[in-house]
Amino acid sequence: MPAEIDFWFEFASSYSYPAAMRIEAEARARDVRVNWRPFLLGPIFRTQGMQTSPFNIFPARGRYMVRDLARVCHELGLPFRMPTPFPQNGLLAARCATALADEERPDFVRAIYAVEFGEGGAISDREVVAKVLAACGHNAEAVLEQAGTDAVKDALRAATEEAAETDVFGAPTFVCSDGELFWGNDRLESALDWAERFARR
Amino acid sequence: MPAEIDFWFEFASSYSYPAAMRIEAEARARDVRVNWRPFLLGPIFRTQGMQTSPFNIFPARGRYMVRDLARVCHELGLPFRMPTPFPQNGLLAARCATALADEERPDFVRAIYAVEFGEGGAISDREVVAKVLAACGHNAEAVLEQAGTDAVKDALRAATEEAAETDVFGAPTFVCSDGELFWGNDRLESALDWAERFARR
Repeated sequence: MPAEIDFWFEFASSYSYPAAMRIEAEARARDVRVNWRPFLLGPIFRTQGMQTSPFNIFPARGRYMVRDLARVCHELGLPFRMPTPFPQNGLLAARCATALADEERPDFVRAIYAVEFGEGGAISDREVVAKVLAACGHNAEAVLEQAGTDAVKDALRAATEEAAETDVFGAPTFVCSDGELFWGNDRLESALDWAERFARR
Repeated sequence: MPAEIDFWFEFASSYSYPAAMRIEAEARARDVRVNWRPFLLGPIFRTQGMQTSPFNIFPARGRYMVRDLARVCHELGLPFRMPTPFPQNGLLAARCATALADEERPDFVRAIYAVEFGEGGAISDREVVAKVLAACGHNAEAVLEQAGTDAVKDALRAATEEAAETDVFGAPTFVCSDGELFWGNDRLESALDWAERFARR
């Protein structure tokens, strides 16, 4: 059985940015296949009584996150700029990511994150999403239209419910085939190591 | 100027346990001096509107913390057992840590964490704290008496205020001489690397 990992990401999540940028190289080094799983944190946060990001609810934590993420990105050689407002509404981008085929998804996701946290761009803007789609070689209007269909909306809603049932409470989250769950960009290597070991058994 | 780092810890904090157990070896390897700073997270959490640990407020995060910390401790070869109830009331232990001299503090702090998260012991129990003090070679009753004085209570209160003013919002937190702040056991190495680089400038 080849090793696999579910990579749950949310476009509003700042630490999902470095995770998305580096997961494929780290996974390839361990021969692990990555399933890119877009979902929405909003509904999960709301069941926990939070109406916005914990980084906004707890300002000292929010200030720290910006500084810490700047250090993390500097270390990785990634450009970093926080978008305003934060968090960005990533619903449209998440629907587009859902609409795309599995093999088309990673490029689009990385390109969205690069605009959002590399340039501080407004990914809630339909024009911005359209530009990213086009830059990835897609027919932007066709994908955006598909993203607005009930089938895609339902699929994203189902993914979010699956995430909640899997005990996902933040992003990025990595879930191995045996159910072992790892939260946070810091745990990417541990998660992939676990997935690789599980597949070898 | 020799490199220094403030290590802010809280006895109720689960991730402070591995940090306390390994900070001296990591600091020594970089020639960094550690200032062990006990403080209380309760007053800081309350100004953020939280009446208990975020791990209790958000159950999925709490379940994950226990699993994650078990993995972290396993990796470090540290015994791990969660105390009941969690969080433990660490006020008495924090006052004792405050009462002790700087050079006596690390041994006592490690011994308390070893009982609390290595054995799942009740460190809110005066008898348990007394035993730990005695095991560290102290006159337990004398330290406990000193821990109850206004001077010690005021010193711990002042430390907590200093932590809040420094933007400490969780534990463990590491603060370098230039004010650079790192949060979490995961950031111990980065914090010490930073402290070492700053001292070299």
